[in-house]
Amino acid sequence: MNVIDVIRAKRDGGELTDRQIDWVIRAYTDGIVADEQMSALAMAILLNGMGRREINRWTDAMIATGERMDYSALGRPTADKHSTGGVGDKITLPLAPLVASCGAAVPQLSGRGLGHTGGTLDKLESIPGWRARLSNDEMLAVLREAGAVVCAAGDGLAPADRKLYALRDVTGTVESIPLIASSIMSKKIAEGTGALVLDVKVGSGAFMKTREDAKRLAETMVALGTDHGVRTVALLTDMAVPLGLTAGNALEVRESVEVLAGAGPADVVELTLALAREMLAAAGIDGVDPAEKLADGSAMDAWKRMIRAQGGDPDAPLPTAKERHVVPAPASGTLTRLDALAVGVAAWRLGAGRTRKEDAVQAGAGIELHAKPGDVVSAGTPLLTLHTDTPERFEAALADLEGAYAIAADSGGADTGYAPRPLILERVSA
Amino acid sequence: MNVIDVIRAKRDGGELTDRQIDWVIRAYTDGIVADEQMSALAMAILLNGMGRREINRWTDAMIATGERMDYSALGRPTADKHSTGGVGDKITLPLAPLVASCGAAVPQLSGRGLGHTGGTLDKLESIPGWRARLSNDEMLAVLREAGAVVCAAGDGLAPADRKLYALRDVTGTVESIPLIASSIMSKKIAEGTGALVLDVKVGSGAFMKTREDAKRLAETMVALGTDHGVRTVALLTDMAVPLGLTAGNALEVRESVEVLAGAGPADVVELTLALAREMLAAAGIDGVDPAEKLADGSAMDAWKRMIRAQGGDPDAPLPTAKERHVVPAPASGTLTRLDALAVGVAAWRLGAGRTRKEDAVQAGAGIELHAKPGDVVSAGTPLLTLHTDTPERFEAALADLEGAYAIAADSGGADTGYAPRPLILERVSA
Repeated sequence: MNVIDVIRAKRDGGELTDRQIDWVIRAYTDGIVADEQMSALAMAILLNGMGRREINRWTDAMIATGERMDYSALGRPTADKHSTGGVGDKITLPLAPLVASCGAAVPQLSGRGLGHTGGTLDKLESIPGWRARLSNDEMLAVLREAGAVVCAAGDGLAPADRKLYALRDVTGTVESIPLIASSIMSKKIAEGTGALVLDVKVGSGAFMKTREDAKRLAETMVALGTDHGVRTVALLTDMAVPLGLTAGNALEVRESVEVLAGAGPADVVELTLALAREMLAAAGIDGVDPAEKLADGSAMDAWKRMIRAQGGDPDAPLPTAKERHVVPAPASGTLTRLDALAVGVAAWRLGAGRTRKEDAVQAGAGIELHAKPGDVVSAGTPLLTLHTDTPERFEAALADLEGAYAIAADSGGADTGYAPRPLILERVSA
Repeated sequence: MNVIDVIRAKRDGGELTDRQIDWVIRAYTDGIVADEQMSALAMAILLNGMGRREINRWTDAMIATGERMDYSALGRPTADKHSTGGVGDKITLPLAPLVASCGAAVPQLSGRGLGHTGGTLDKLESIPGWRARLSNDEMLAVLREAGAVVCAAGDGLAPADRKLYALRDVTGTVESIPLIASSIMSKKIAEGTGALVLDVKVGSGAFMKTREDAKRLAETMVALGTDHGVRTVALLTDMAVPLGLTAGNALEVRESVEVLAGAGPADVVELTLALAREMLAAAGIDGVDPAEKLADGSAMDAWKRMIRAQGGDPDAPLPTAKERHVVPAPASGTLTRLDALAVGVAAWRLGAGRTRKEDAVQAGAGIELHAKPGDVVSAGTPLLTLHTDTPERFEAALADLEGAYAIAADSGGADTGYAPRPLILERVSA
């Protein structure tokens, strides 16, 4: 097999054979195919696409480079959730213990943030003592004890994907639906979950800017999961506006705990419950209402067990940033727009996110929103609070936020131009 | 400037700005942009193309990474020729001294062969003592003394192109007209020739398989040369059949010397004279008939001066291969087809070419043709002679030649299906 023949086949608009796919993934993982060859192939895939058979095989080949996990010994149905990433998307934090409190096992392998979307592990690491890296045995033990575990994917899971993802990140080849779908699904399938719910975000703060792209990605992943025996369903959800009222690591943990306490912002509660119901249905668990588990404290109990099982103290005070800067509402009226991407970039700039994998994040940094679109605000009252340990970053963050929001003056019942948008846009199933 | 933004711009079908092009070529040459990033960009260029402004700027940027040569001190017009490469294409060997004997200075920077097309330097190195590598000062001295020099391009000329070409070679990104054109022309423009004639080959043995592609490449290069003040013209010439009666290093030198002696195969003579006339016209030299310079021995004198000036002995016997294998004509009739690619691959397999840059070539290896399409052959008489020092290669070479030729029985004046094809298909000028 010759890598140049494989690259040419895709470059010239052809389909890769099963043998070509198996070989190129294996050879890349083993260092026989060089980075510069794989990046040329990735660009050809991005521009010329892959069909369903090719995507399936590509995913299989990535899974085959590593280990597969098995939760059958748990004696409980497993359910996992994956979000394509958004601003203020802390849903995993309340969701995993909530679904565990309803009777499913939730093996939630998560990632760190890069760019303007935060990472679940970064958020949880703001809890004193909490550890993201667990061995497979430790992971199983936490799952057994708490019913849910949120941890970093081990190095043994789809190592081809790990290598390829790092390459795509620096070569402008991230935005390919076949490559995104196979990257996400290779890890989820190797992870061994029986049921999977995908939260595919759409809008300025999401990776997928258009509903069409989001739907294509959702359909591709649902097909991949289904073809691999994982009961998979996807929700397309809005990411034009940040989720909840916080973007930043400890800020989002605080908000998640509010949700687990039966309060919290309406959109976070709505999405958490919708995803929980989908996970339970896909796992075959009937007759349990997750809203009750939030109300009666069971979900909070599961959260505390889960945090403690990973070394964290759920009752310890969360870190706060050294400096704050309040942005007041410049006018009175209805907030009609608050752009997710701008808030995400500003939070990242304040220290909540990283530019390179090696960078550390600030636990306390981020942005609090004091209003969401549709809310009425008064001139001079706080609209946003910026948090950071490095106040020299306020200026750049404020520049990112310029033009990110709009306020329409309320003039005697006249139309403000604001129309509420549904949070859950569409459900995609096999 | 961020390389991912540059890659994305081209990936998404946009045009690169002048600043982006200047930066990415410089940064790649300096190792700031990594191979895997440049190969992704090259694939995006291959698939999405570049416009005339972009190709011009890309070429300028590659030239700017190195030195530029200057022949103004010679006091003679300079003319150069570039061929896109074909089987049996030894034209540079008789052409450079012929044009020198007509009054132009011919600074012919040449390359080595890779794959089935031979390299001019490999051919000349079969002459005992001849040296391909000259310093810039040595090159000028040979040019002054002999009127022509054929040597390897120095490392100082367009180093960006050298690095990029090696990358494209291993990443399936060679076949891009903007990248091919800018690669060839960056070296020719940096080399400083005043006039340039391009021999763009079309057919099975050529890089460009279709006339449309060859014409697009020719037009792109003529535009590039013209935009850079080099009087540039291109001939599209047939490469469905090998040029002349030999493919192989010393075999082709022998045939070239026959042409310089006023004999040689008709097609080699025809193309040599046509290219010589174009070079002289582009260099502004009128009233000299190159056919006379072949006939009166002036071209041969220039050849001997050129070879001697580079350490070679033009009168020494040429190396021959240790073993020969004759392929007889399987039937009597008219040879209607003799495929250039098959002959090129077989010659390469016999040792005339190399697989990797580091490989050595055999001086004596190659193929002699005893007939060309249109010739009448008799069953059992020699059709081809294979030459090699490594006779275990005969079998593979013979396999390459299977189906490479066709003989139509002459049956009382009936049509053999053979139609002579013109060698020179088209002329492309600014």
